[in-house]
Amino acid sequence: MTSHLPPLLRRALAEFVGTALLVSIVVGSGIAAQQLSPTDTGLQLLQNSTATVLGLTVLIVIFGPVSGAHFNPVVSLVDWILGRRSGSGLTLAEMGTYVLAQTVGAIGGSLLANAMFEVGTAISTKDRLTPGHLLAEIVATAGLLLLISSLAATKRSTLAAPAVGAYIGAAYWFTSSTSFANPAVTVGRVFSDTFAGIAPSSAPGFIAAQLIGAAVGLGLLALLFPVSSRSADDVVVPSIH
Amino acid sequence: MTSHLPPLLRRALAEFVGTALLVSIVVGSGIAAQQLSPTDTGLQLLQNSTATVLGLTVLIVIFGPVSGAHFNPVVSLVDWILGRRSGSGLTLAEMGTYVLAQTVGAIGGSLLANAMFEVGTAISTKDRLTPGHLLAEIVATAGLLLLISSLAATKRSTLAAPAVGAYIGAAYWFTSSTSFANPAVTVGRVFSDTFAGIAPSSAPGFIAAQLIGAAVGLGLLALLFPVSSRSADDVVVPSIH
Amino acid sequence: MTSHLPPLLRRALAEFVGTALLVSIVVGSGIAAQQLSPTDTGLQLLQNSTATVLGLTVLIVIFGPVSGAHFNPVVSLVDWILGRRSGSGLTLAEMGTYVLAQTVGAIGGSLLANAMFEVGTAISTKDRLTPGHLLAEIVATAGLLLLISSLAATKRSTLAAPAVGAYIGAAYWFTSSTSFANPAVTVGRVFSDTFAGIAPSSAPGFIAAQLIGAAVGLGLLALLFPVSSRSADDVVVPSIH
Amino acid sequence: MTSHLPPLLRRALAEFVGTALLVSIVVGSGIAAQQLSPTDTGLQLLQNSTATVLGLTVLIVIFGPVSGAHFNPVVSLVDWILGRRSGSGLTLAEMGTYVLAQTVGAIGGSLLANAMFEVGTAISTKDRLTPGHLLAEIVATAGLLLLISSLAATKRSTLAAPAVGAYIGAAYWFTSSTSFANPAVTVGRVFSDTFAGIAPSSAPGFIAAQLIGAAVGLGLLALLFPVSSRSADDVVVPSIH
Repeated sequence: MTSHLPPLLRRALAEFVGTALLVSIVVGSGIAAQQLSPTDTGLQLLQNSTATVLGLTVLIVIFGPVSGAHFNPVVSLVDWILGRRSGSGLTLAEMGTYVLAQTVGAIGGSLLANAMFEVGTAISTKDRLTPGHLLAEIVATAGLLLLISSLAATKRSTLAAPAVGAYIGAAYWFTSSTSFANPAVTVGRVFSDTFAGIAPSSAPGFIAAQLIGAAVGLGLLALLFPVSSRSADDVVVPSIH
Repeated sequence: MTSHLPPLLRRALAEFVGTALLVSIVVGSGIAAQQLSPTDTGLQLLQNSTATVLGLTVLIVIFGPVSGAHFNPVVSLVDWILGRRSGSGLTLAEMGTYVLAQTVGAIGGSLLANAMFEVGTAISTKDRLTPGHLLAEIVATAGLLLLISSLAATKRSTLAAPAVGAYIGAAYWFTSSTSFANPAVTVGRVFSDTFAGIAPSSAPGFIAAQLIGAAVGLGLLALLFPVSSRSADDVVVPSIH
Repeated sequence: MTSHLPPLLRRALAEFVGTALLVSIVVGSGIAAQQLSPTDTGLQLLQNSTATVLGLTVLIVIFGPVSGAHFNPVVSLVDWILGRRSGSGLTLAEMGTYVLAQTVGAIGGSLLANAMFEVGTAISTKDRLTPGHLLAEIVATAGLLLLISSLAATKRSTLAAPAVGAYIGAAYWFTSSTSFANPAVTVGRVFSDTFAGIAPSSAPGFIAAQLIGAAVGLGLLALLFPVSSRSADDVVVPSIH
Repeated sequence: MTSHLPPLLRRALAEFVGTALLVSIVVGSGIAAQQLSPTDTGLQLLQNSTATVLGLTVLIVIFGPVSGAHFNPVVSLVDWILGRRSGSGLTLAEMGTYVLAQTVGAIGGSLLANAMFEVGTAISTKDRLTPGHLLAEIVATAGLLLLISSLAATKRSTLAAPAVGAYIGAAYWFTSSTSFANPAVTVGRVFSDTFAGIAPSSAPGFIAAQLIGAAVGLGLLALLFPVSSRSADDVVVPSIH
């Protein structure tokens, strides 16, 4: 029961395992939904989104105290940007480590889901690149970043777990893209040719839209939560490291 | 990251963005539901209401500390009425600003949802004006106002986010009108000829019923939560402004 | 905004309005479900149970501080029984007042739902009396009473709103009777010949089973939560009266 | 209202009743789902998983203060293992008592569900033994144990009720086995030849996978939550015994 992992490695492990489980929840529940409710795509999405709300909330509860439970490169990026002022966010090197762990974890999560459902791993052929979907990714990511950073700004980060879970559950439905809002998860979902997959040709556009969305979210944060009335010290949850 | 918006403008921006996102959740998830589950209207409404419960809760979490997260002219109206006694509610000018921001935001939310789903903006042709629906709007709005003002009266406004979300989720189903309960959202939903739309000819009746419902809610508040046992200081949530 | 209702009348009004809204949620969402998803009874029950989980939770939040939010004669009965020892529960006269308010409210709730959906009020013809259903009502009511009284015994009554809502949501499904577990609601549901109705001939058996269930729940409470480790002072939630 | 059960017997009774109700929720809601939504297996699973999320959460709320609300032999096993260091967990004899109470309770829960739905008790014929399902049970149990023990390690065990409920709700969907993750529940579900049943020939493999999963969960705990930053004093919730 004694662990002597260096702290950054331990945090990266948390990002790796957490993102892997997140993607295996998204992909796995998508496969289950597709197999069990073959006649109604909306019912499949309801099953998929419900599983994600519950699972994402729990993952943030588990991993939040270790790494902040980012599971998402744009969240780590914003943590770095906001932290430069206060000196309390991720360093650039830490951010790079997080993004790497998230991306590898996301791919691993697809492979794990494929293995549990014995469907075989294949690159997705699901083209998702439309103007409406790109707008949707901007909106979805802006909202996600505004949520997370407004909680930090008002020292309510203990609400992050249920609030982020609920946000993603709504965003599955109110955005036309079903709200990826996460570059690592986007990459991970390339590796499953199932309900939740995305063709590699659609991924760069989605990721670009997510980066734009993060900038929009930061702009709204600056307008709505001026620095004098908040603290940017902790971006997601209180930490044990 | 520095913002120097005047406080009232900042609060109006919160009401504008929050109401826009609320309507884009209602309208957008309605479009998704209609497209994905074309054969069962009840399943569509379950998807629509589930997305709204989750999304509305999150919006109140985000915007509550800035503007109180009213997103609803009758909530702002009641805040003004209850605040006249204590001097702590909205002023008349502030209320007017809120209502304007909410209404413009609601229309913007419909346009945003239409754009994400690439359905084109058209005025709704969905006639909803029946005696049963008007009674339903009275009941729905009375319950909403009683909830919000009873939380304020008992100093439990931190429960507003999940409680208001849950209330609307129930009201989608137990009222025959699917519970608009909000004049700004009613106007906004005119601008989408989709699942969640409402014909302009039905809107005035709905809004009148909502105003009656607000009065009923205030009457119940007065009977059940006499002033001696409560404080009307804050109507929705603790504020940072 | 000033109210001078005598305290017991105010509490009875809360029980009346709260129980009416509870039954209008159960009956109204049942009607909506039946109209909107005519081909799948299970989907109807999912809509009905989801609306009830959300709505019942909110009603306990609103009315808990006024009357304890019993909405249920067996809850008031147990409050009286447990309170005799400590002198802090309902008196016999108060219990009678509560039960009357609950029963009249429940009937009013059916009428309100019928009016909102313009279905006309008729006595239900839905026979529900089977041995399995009676066993189910015993189990459902025992669990409900054990939940409520164990929360009081461990001074966690602030959890009552979400916990009771969640319990009923589970009990809709794991009991064969869909878990009435409430004599007043049973009577109220006689007055709607719709999805959620119950024939008058089935009501007395259901109510008898609920009373047996309450006794079973009290027996489990006595075994699991001995008096030395708990307080029976407040049965549902902290009160403002 | 006075109880003089010896403390261990009282705790065993809580494990017995709690596990019985858990299995009757899983099996009973499965029967209801199968009867009411006969044409869509995915909709059945959604009803089954929704009822379990709500019901399991409530059961942990009720029984947590009495016995810790393990309801699961691998949870009790891990409590014993982690407690040997600190001297605060279950003793070996207590663990044996818990496991016995859980297993007998689980079987009783199946019988109770069968009786409520009047389906008759028969041994399940549902073969579930596939490599994918075994991998799924390892993943599901590892995640469950990591969740519970990480909450204890960070002194957040009051979150166990909603978090464990939510976890199981996600795991129903993202694992191909629908996530048994519990040897006692696995045995109990043998005794119902219905939607939620499992053939006796599949049970030993499932239980072996669950034990492997528990070991994986403990390994992740050791890596992510080193002893210096946590306390292993209480594994599930604060206790009244």
